[in-house]
Amino acid sequence: MSQTAPVAASVTDLAEALIACPSVTPAMGMVFDCLEKQLTPLGFEVTRFVAGEAPDGPVENLFAVRRGPDGSRHFAFAGHLDVVPPGDGWTTAPFLPERRGDLLHGRGAVDMKGSIAAMVAAVREIPSEAGTISFVITGDEEGPARYGTLALMDLMRERGEIPDLCLVGEPTSVNRLGDTMKIGRRGSVNIFLDVEGVQGHVAYPHLADNPVTKLVGMLAELDAQVLDEGTDWFQASNLEITDLTVGNPAHNVIPAKASARISIRFNDLHTGAELGARVTAIAEKHGGTARPLISGEAFLTEPGTFSAILAEAIRAETGVDPELSTSGGTSDARFLKDLCPVIEFGLCNATMHKRDEAVAMADLDALARIYRRVTEAALSGSGANS
Amino acid sequence: MSQTAPVAASVTDLAEALIACPSVTPAMGMVFDCLEKQLTPLGFEVTRFVAGEAPDGPVENLFAVRRGPDGSRHFAFAGHLDVVPPGDGWTTAPFLPERRGDLLHGRGAVDMKGSIAAMVAAVREIPSEAGTISFVITGDEEGPARYGTLALMDLMRERGEIPDLCLVGEPTSVNRLGDTMKIGRRGSVNIFLDVEGVQGHVAYPHLADNPVTKLVGMLAELDAQVLDEGTDWFQASNLEITDLTVGNPAHNVIPAKASARISIRFNDLHTGAELGARVTAIAEKHGGTARPLISGEAFLTEPGTFSAILAEAIRAETGVDPELSTSGGTSDARFLKDLCPVIEFGLCNATMHKRDEAVAMADLDALARIYRRVTEAALSGSGANS
Repeated sequence: MSQTAPVAASVTDLAEALIACPSVTPAMGMVFDCLEKQLTPLGFEVTRFVAGEAPDGPVENLFAVRRGPDGSRHFAFAGHLDVVPPGDGWTTAPFLPERRGDLLHGRGAVDMKGSIAAMVAAVREIPSEAGTISFVITGDEEGPARYGTLALMDLMRERGEIPDLCLVGEPTSVNRLGDTMKIGRRGSVNIFLDVEGVQGHVAYPHLADNPVTKLVGMLAELDAQVLDEGTDWFQASNLEITDLTVGNPAHNVIPAKASARISIRFNDLHTGAELGARVTAIAEKHGGTARPLISGEAFLTEPGTFSAILAEAIRAETGVDPELSTSGGTSDARFLKDLCPVIEFGLCNATMHKRDEAVAMADLDALARIYRRVTEAALSGSGANS
Repeated sequence: MSQTAPVAASVTDLAEALIACPSVTPAMGMVFDCLEKQLTPLGFEVTRFVAGEAPDGPVENLFAVRRGPDGSRHFAFAGHLDVVPPGDGWTTAPFLPERRGDLLHGRGAVDMKGSIAAMVAAVREIPSEAGTISFVITGDEEGPARYGTLALMDLMRERGEIPDLCLVGEPTSVNRLGDTMKIGRRGSVNIFLDVEGVQGHVAYPHLADNPVTKLVGMLAELDAQVLDEGTDWFQASNLEITDLTVGNPAHNVIPAKASARISIRFNDLHTGAELGARVTAIAEKHGGTARPLISGEAFLTEPGTFSAILAEAIRAETGVDPELSTSGGTSDARFLKDLCPVIEFGLCNATMHKRDEAVAMADLDALARIYRRVTEAALSGSGANS
């Protein structure tokens, strides 16, 4: 199999080519050239653009589309070419992909160059008459993500290229390929709490105003909040106090300021703004202030035919019955859910973000077959959410 | 007036001689020689001894007694020759006493070499037939105070020299000489609280055990404690949370440990041990630990004839009606109250522990006259507490 004939390359060949382009977040240039070269021979019209300015940009993005017959359905695959920094202690060179036994080693093997390669391999087996297929690929998912998928979505809306369904290729499998897909994600908001007081001597508390007392009252009330009891698909929203700071070395001094930080992971019964307002009201009641920083909103793609055809594709290729999960952190699916139903499914995440990231080459092949099945089913119309 | 005739020296002369002996805590040697030379001509039998070992010793102490006729009453004056470090920025040399206008400048001028000088001057006007007078003088009141007044009390008990009343010469006056005497002091205990948890990711709280949640519950319960409503002579005991520590920079991590420190200033309805046990029980109920460090117990000398004769002496010499206070920090009176009724009264404390410590020379003279009056009244028997 020749390296100069990408269309005939194996999934591992395709993944190797992507891994060999260093692309620590934000990814630019070479790794996009590489993907573009894999897609254009397959009939994709590729649009690349750079969005945003410092500090959260510039960011390179790629939208590739192969249109089916007029009126055909549109299935989108979303992902990212940037990777987290490799860190130290690798047994291989992180950006020199290396096959060792059954595994392909290299940064991005599972998160998520391997997954993109699997989709490229899947697509080349699908005739263009089957329908419209697109790649929605950003160079900034691991970073601030402000000018990545959001900018791609702006482009798609401008062009009227709104997919019917979108599959995000994040590594959602846990113990073996196919055991988990994500049909939603919780939202996340960090809130910084501050209370200012008046410093003084502990022997003369009437001359001071202890901010710690107020902070403790505030935190006790926040901790007692029951945000919800969970839903059919989400666990209950949860608030954790993650930091406390006073920094007062003097045993006999009432300090001037006390601070705390909380983190709320919330389900689709809430929004970050609503929770920020709720916490702010409690903070102010106790004489303090709250500064919410929303990392992402919750979303849920209700189980239906999309999850059903994906589960069927997984079962057909692996024999595994996937769990429909909403656990874990955030991903770009939190943005894409504004376009159309979104589900995330990809490789095993055990080595994701760690040294010696590696993927089983057999999993790459199996994932390509799963992606082919779900794409064909989605384009045939059976993937319309009920 | 000759410097070689201490008995004829003014109060200011006596104070100058003591200030000129550098005696940053713990005081040793020269400053005790100086006081001894002032007392022996007045008929005092002086005992000096060194107590304790590192780290809180050795400490030099001086017990001087001039016995009255058999069966006469015993009035003790307690104080310390050590001073706090002068620090920087003085306009005079801290240990070269200097008269400027109405003031005598030097470290220890008010806390409390001036007060000791005033008592020496007072005593030389009182005939030995009036009764037994003693000086209970330590070289370590400003430091750990473990081998100072406590060691002197051991000596006095051994010798059966238990006073009927004890006046501590601490600088209790606030705005003008005579405005405040202290008939008691609150106790003080600092308590270190720790909660150990299990670190984890905020997205997976069921795999972690957040120690901050437990600490906040513990602190809320502690803060809600009503220790008492105060007494006739004491304000209510008070608990302040003085520090919080987690030190977790990661927004998405539940930390492994959380700590706090509280400070309780308590009146004579409590002991440090009882409060320590009470806080420990609450800490353990919330899964944490508590480590109490008792700085001093509360004491009260109930207002009676002792405070009455002291107030009368103050009024006679200054025209001021003194307040009977229990406010402020701790002093060696917290130990001496185990021997006999104790009251504290001395110079104005505005410059105490600060740079340019200074005393009005007129106050030194007035204080000597007040000390003479109260000593005479105490020895005459009118100072027995009702």
